[in-house]
Amino acid sequence: MKRTIIGVMGPGGGAGSKDLENARRLGTLLARQGWVVLCGGRSVGVMDAVCKGAKEAGGLTVGVLPDDDAVGASEAVEIAIVTGMGNARNAINVLSSDVVVACGMGTGTASEIALALKANKDVILLGDHKEAIEFFSAIGKEKVTVARDPEDVIAIAKQILKR
Amino acid sequence: MKRTIIGVMGPGGGAGSKDLENARRLGTLLARQGWVVLCGGRSVGVMDAVCKGAKEAGGLTVGVLPDDDAVGASEAVEIAIVTGMGNARNAINVLSSDVVVACGMGTGTASEIALALKANKDVILLGDHKEAIEFFSAIGKEKVTVARDPEDVIAIAKQILKR
Amino acid sequence: MKRTIIGVMGPGGGAGSKDLENARRLGTLLARQGWVVLCGGRSVGVMDAVCKGAKEAGGLTVGVLPDDDAVGASEAVEIAIVTGMGNARNAINVLSSDVVVACGMGTGTASEIALALKANKDVILLGDHKEAIEFFSAIGKEKVTVARDPEDVIAIAKQILKR
Amino acid sequence: MKRTIIGVMGPGGGAGSKDLENARRLGTLLARQGWVVLCGGRSVGVMDAVCKGAKEAGGLTVGVLPDDDAVGASEAVEIAIVTGMGNARNAINVLSSDVVVACGMGTGTASEIALALKANKDVILLGDHKEAIEFFSAIGKEKVTVARDPEDVIAIAKQILKR
Repeated sequence: MKRTIIGVMGPGGGAGSKDLENARRLGTLLARQGWVVLCGGRSVGVMDAVCKGAKEAGGLTVGVLPDDDAVGASEAVEIAIVTGMGNARNAINVLSSDVVVACGMGTGTASEIALALKANKDVILLGDHKEAIEFFSAIGKEKVTVARDPEDVIAIAKQILKR
Repeated sequence: MKRTIIGVMGPGGGAGSKDLENARRLGTLLARQGWVVLCGGRSVGVMDAVCKGAKEAGGLTVGVLPDDDAVGASEAVEIAIVTGMGNARNAINVLSSDVVVACGMGTGTASEIALALKANKDVILLGDHKEAIEFFSAIGKEKVTVARDPEDVIAIAKQILKR
Repeated sequence: MKRTIIGVMGPGGGAGSKDLENARRLGTLLARQGWVVLCGGRSVGVMDAVCKGAKEAGGLTVGVLPDDDAVGASEAVEIAIVTGMGNARNAINVLSSDVVVACGMGTGTASEIALALKANKDVILLGDHKEAIEFFSAIGKEKVTVARDPEDVIAIAKQILKR
Repeated sequence: MKRTIIGVMGPGGGAGSKDLENARRLGTLLARQGWVVLCGGRSVGVMDAVCKGAKEAGGLTVGVLPDDDAVGASEAVEIAIVTGMGNARNAINVLSSDVVVACGMGTGTASEIALALKANKDVILLGDHKEAIEFFSAIGKEKVTVARDPEDVIAIAKQILKR
């Protein structure tokens, strides 16, 4: 009965235009697979873009919010989980996801990748942040895969979910 | 876009048969309103019953789980939020709910009612636990309402959501 | 090596003068036993008073704070644990305490008592809140003891720690 | 009244012998400064070593534990903060620290560095993990400093605390 959840992590205010484009496309592709899209839920950056992309394809979106109310949530978040826990909620984001995708890079995103690997989750890196790829490949080994584009994320996620 | 979420709190292993009956009926009635049902998500007691009731009416169910995986989740939970935080997740349960309903009583349920009142949420008490009604009415005042039965919960929740 | 920690929970802004007097006296008596005093750490109410009492007797004070910095901490808190988790930190307060004392009553305090009982901790109630005594005695049974005054808290805590 | 807290993060079971040696020496040096040593508190790896080093110099040690009891705590932890939150407690570790030191590298440590940078804390990296130094310098910029040895950590921390 439990639905498959794909967590998409990425920068808020610091997201680049390529990250936002990737996130929106990724949201749409994930929704078309029938997967639930989970993210940090705020109305900025990758969080907002991935939820909008998912909604455009009729998907279900879950936002795990840092604040103690839903005021700052993306309007494309359908299920708002209000944690009031700041960035400690990053641990919840990754534990709740069957696969974790990082779309872009920043300090919050880095914490989510690291927490995901600590919890033995598979992580897909989308984006060309060279130092991030080298670092997380070094500490995460075979749990880390690099994707070329959103379509590639879907193909890799399917392989992971089949195991 | 954010959907209305009603949190239903109640005992797990210690739930009585009347609590379970109320929870199942309540889940069905909440789903018929188009409201999302959120609970502690475990496969026991009120959590399990309210999710089953909601699913029977085609509703959407969210379980906010205490463990660090979804193994102990009710099979009627559709969206599993895995917190790994034990009973600290009770704070998330109430912050995420537009209205909090207590169906039955126990130490975990009492903590959720108290946390809900601390967060200035409206709480509906379903069940005839005399000491609980007197205590929470004393500390929660007009934020606490006592319901006679699941139908009454729906009527009260509608009033609260209209404000 | 781990030192004995006594958690003292109680209202902040809503504390009455008797609660504050009890908390200050209790802090002093706990420190004289060589016990560490832990509380919610804010610079108001019972939290502030119990830390001040403990410091007057040369005790060690730990404040587990709700905010994401230590700005609102009592000046009598020596070890500030900054959680950034709001009232979810109430779960940490009770798990970290060998014995939990409630000095006065309010919604936050009620959540801490309930979470303590859920975690199978012993709880000592100090204060004459009739509905609280009846409710928590009903749900907590032999894990709940009522104390007449701060001196009585010490005597009861000694018995509990001896077990 | 609040004492200065230096958080020392590092691997548990995966710590190398150089990391353990550094951690023990660092604990001693931090304690000699009169600073409180805070860590993840478990009885393994860097956590255990830094607490032992601090105790040898008469320091005060705080362990912020992931489990819901203190059973797995290092015997050199004096103040055990029991969170029951798994690795979500990593957020508390860094928020509670005036300066964060990473001694060695692993997925948990990486999450703590990233969470520290997200919270705008200064981070000192001790150890020669090339990819980690490059990655965290790239995302953390001037908030990240690399230390040659434990003595260098003290010198850098003094500079940071002076600001």
